[in-house]
Amino acid sequence: MSIEGEVRDSATRRERVGLDEALVSEVREALERRDTALATALARTLHPSDLADLIQLLEPHQRLLLLRALGPDVDPDTFAYLEESVREELLERLGPDWGGRIVAELDVDDAVDVLEDLDRAEREAILERLPIHERIAVEEQLRFPEDSAGRLMQRDFVAVPEYWLVGQTIDYLRATPGLPDDFYDIFIVDPRMHPVGGVPVSRVLRSRRSVAMRDLRLKELHLIPATMDQEEVAFLFRQYGLVSAPVVDEQGRIIGVITVDDVVDVIEEEAEEDILALGGVSETDVFVPPAETVRRRAPWLLINLITAIIASMVIALFEETIARVVSLAVLMPIVASMGGNAGTQTLTIAVRALATRELSPANAARVIAKELLAGCLNGLLFLAVGAAVALVWFGDPWLAAVFGLAMLVNLVVAALSGVAIPLLLHRLGLDPAVASSVFLTTITDVVGFFAFLGLAQLVLLD
Amino acid sequence: MSIEGEVRDSATRRERVGLDEALVSEVREALERRDTALATALARTLHPSDLADLIQLLEPHQRLLLLRALGPDVDPDTFAYLEESVREELLERLGPDWGGRIVAELDVDDAVDVLEDLDRAEREAILERLPIHERIAVEEQLRFPEDSAGRLMQRDFVAVPEYWLVGQTIDYLRATPGLPDDFYDIFIVDPRMHPVGGVPVSRVLRSRRSVAMRDLRLKELHLIPATMDQEEVAFLFRQYGLVSAPVVDEQGRIIGVITVDDVVDVIEEEAEEDILALGGVSETDVFVPPAETVRRRAPWLLINLITAIIASMVIALFEETIARVVSLAVLMPIVASMGGNAGTQTLTIAVRALATRELSPANAARVIAKELLAGCLNGLLFLAVGAAVALVWFGDPWLAAVFGLAMLVNLVVAALSGVAIPLLLHRLGLDPAVASSVFLTTITDVVGFFAFLGLAQLVLLD
Repeated sequence: MSIEGEVRDSATRRERVGLDEALVSEVREALERRDTALATALARTLHPSDLADLIQLLEPHQRLLLLRALGPDVDPDTFAYLEESVREELLERLGPDWGGRIVAELDVDDAVDVLEDLDRAEREAILERLPIHERIAVEEQLRFPEDSAGRLMQRDFVAVPEYWLVGQTIDYLRATPGLPDDFYDIFIVDPRMHPVGGVPVSRVLRSRRSVAMRDLRLKELHLIPATMDQEEVAFLFRQYGLVSAPVVDEQGRIIGVITVDDVVDVIEEEAEEDILALGGVSETDVFVPPAETVRRRAPWLLINLITAIIASMVIALFEETIARVVSLAVLMPIVASMGGNAGTQTLTIAVRALATRELSPANAARVIAKELLAGCLNGLLFLAVGAAVALVWFGDPWLAAVFGLAMLVNLVVAALSGVAIPLLLHRLGLDPAVASSVFLTTITDVVGFFAFLGLAQLVLLD
Repeated sequence: MSIEGEVRDSATRRERVGLDEALVSEVREALERRDTALATALARTLHPSDLADLIQLLEPHQRLLLLRALGPDVDPDTFAYLEESVREELLERLGPDWGGRIVAELDVDDAVDVLEDLDRAEREAILERLPIHERIAVEEQLRFPEDSAGRLMQRDFVAVPEYWLVGQTIDYLRATPGLPDDFYDIFIVDPRMHPVGGVPVSRVLRSRRSVAMRDLRLKELHLIPATMDQEEVAFLFRQYGLVSAPVVDEQGRIIGVITVDDVVDVIEEEAEEDILALGGVSETDVFVPPAETVRRRAPWLLINLITAIIASMVIALFEETIARVVSLAVLMPIVASMGGNAGTQTLTIAVRALATRELSPANAARVIAKELLAGCLNGLLFLAVGAAVALVWFGDPWLAAVFGLAMLVNLVVAALSGVAIPLLLHRLGLDPAVASSVFLTTITDVVGFFAFLGLAQLVLLD
């Protein structure tokens, strides 16, 4: 009976997954009325992940009000799901006693995730309040480099000796307390704790007690060094469809396990980094105050100002020409804009292909040749379209010809730069998503203005 | 012994995950020499996922050569891992007999994935060659809408009645052939095949035979309607850390299961769609021929041409002013460019926040107010910087003042548009990643030119 009730409830909610917007409004209104009883009653029905989303959607003062009203029995996982800047602000406001109580109850990997973002003093204050074994575990894990497998892993895993049978394994699992709640693979280890195989749990369940564990092991075992970058870890999981994999120390001993749910977050993060970098922002800042937002975004705009000035210097070279044929000033932004957009298309494809490894040194020459050819075709197309537009607009065939030719030149240069710049940055070991677009638009602006105004000076002023 | 050998091998490869670049070169060179024996020997050592990557990095004629040399014993999963355009081309060249043999050996969900991209005639030709039960299964699954849970799911799952004990379940799993290879949850179903609970496999393994399955079930069960969009499915998995979830038909009966490895691909795909859309491209086209590339990218450039012309018409309004003060032509692209870049920053954040649901109607007003304030601060900052630059460059305080003010106006408008446009598109049910940036740059160009040239006309020509 009770099972059916719960499931029916879930089934009626199924059209709209995640947090319900009506509930968000209700909680907001309750908090505005200081009706914390209603707000907490509503909030308590939520999965910690949805509760975190709710907290984020509240005004800053409402967040604090709700959390204080929920009291210490709020599911600590809620904090693991919060966006970094919101979490920091709340932990600071709630104080280290609160923070210590929350972090003490988190899994070590989540605790590490929460603590690594805090500033030193706050982190120390919380660490001091942790039970000693928890504190040691967290500090040990924080010693791994940022964004490494060591920070990502869980320290609880299930490992059995090579010579065990399924029956022994099942008896061990039934009798041993303190094993992880849920796990997907059982690792086979040699006497030195080196993993030598992995067995999916379902295979154990389907096998008779007399079967040897080593006979059930998967053909391949992917060991993850604790220092491996999380981006490589994510690639490994995707490429080989892993659900969990053992993390090993420098001596090759198993020290933890990474599971696919951790990796799902990394995949999302890495893709997000690329989107943001291409847009000229370093991190999401929806929940960050305006002044801090400006502090983060202004440096990029300053770089853009400098590159825009460089492009304008090209225009300044042709002031006299423009003074005599003002139509040039009208048409020149079109040439630059078309180059910028065509280049961005190629750039986006190239950055993405480098990330997914569809583009590598092995096929770089072919991809460059292809983009160059596509750029020429595009250029010829927009030479025709552009020239026609300029002819109709200004009725001057020479101006139209110059405009079309400049378009061709810029689209070809844009295609070449769009693929060459990210490849070059990648070869230099830099992240092509971060700096590519500045270089690209500088080139397409400079070339666009120079080609158009230079050609115009040659053709129109003779 | 043999285990250790394999693992050691894997451990030495661990620094560089995925396909080895030296191997790619070796295969390419072997194929150029027509040394297919070496090429196939090297290729046969690879995981199908790496083999797919290798094939993609070859020249088109080499791909065919390698696959023909590998012959029909190539792991069919290789085709499931290939990028769409490469797969289509190869299946077409290799013919429907080859294709049928490959598809027949794939899991149904992978078969659906391969077939859904082909054109009708080719798909039919391959379907005709499938064993009848396989064909029916694939056709049934193809009847679900594109990008739906129904297309994504696997049809094999493990379900047991509510009243079973752990012991019965284990006996059933040991005795029944034809169950899926690996699975992560066992679903509890009522007599009408409605799922009423999910039990992680590891919990079954850790429990005594006399424990009732229903007592092991997780608190929450998330049912996925077969028609649910894959983006919602991915959200569900991420939000609640799911590893597998049952797919149900309209009557609520279980008809399949979606596992996290399918979802990992969807997450990657969805993030990629956003990156590409913001860059003005609809799909990755690294492996697509140049003419087809142009066909895909030119429409976007044409739209950009139209919007650039609109912005240029604004300039045309001020031709006389520019003719008298040519420095305006030099400075005006800077105003437009700064607006475009600042707007793109805000836009990127907003598009991303909408996708991750950090931005919703509940907090839209606050986020708009915040961006507007950040835009004002940014505007004041670059009013000062811009005016200083213009003053030093042209020595005209009035021109400098006009330039700075226009910058302020455009940065404020950019901030507002950057968050308002995606919110508006989202509310209209459109994808904010696709169209936002055209609207944005049109606005920042028009406003930038109008504010700067208009102010200049008022101030400088009096």
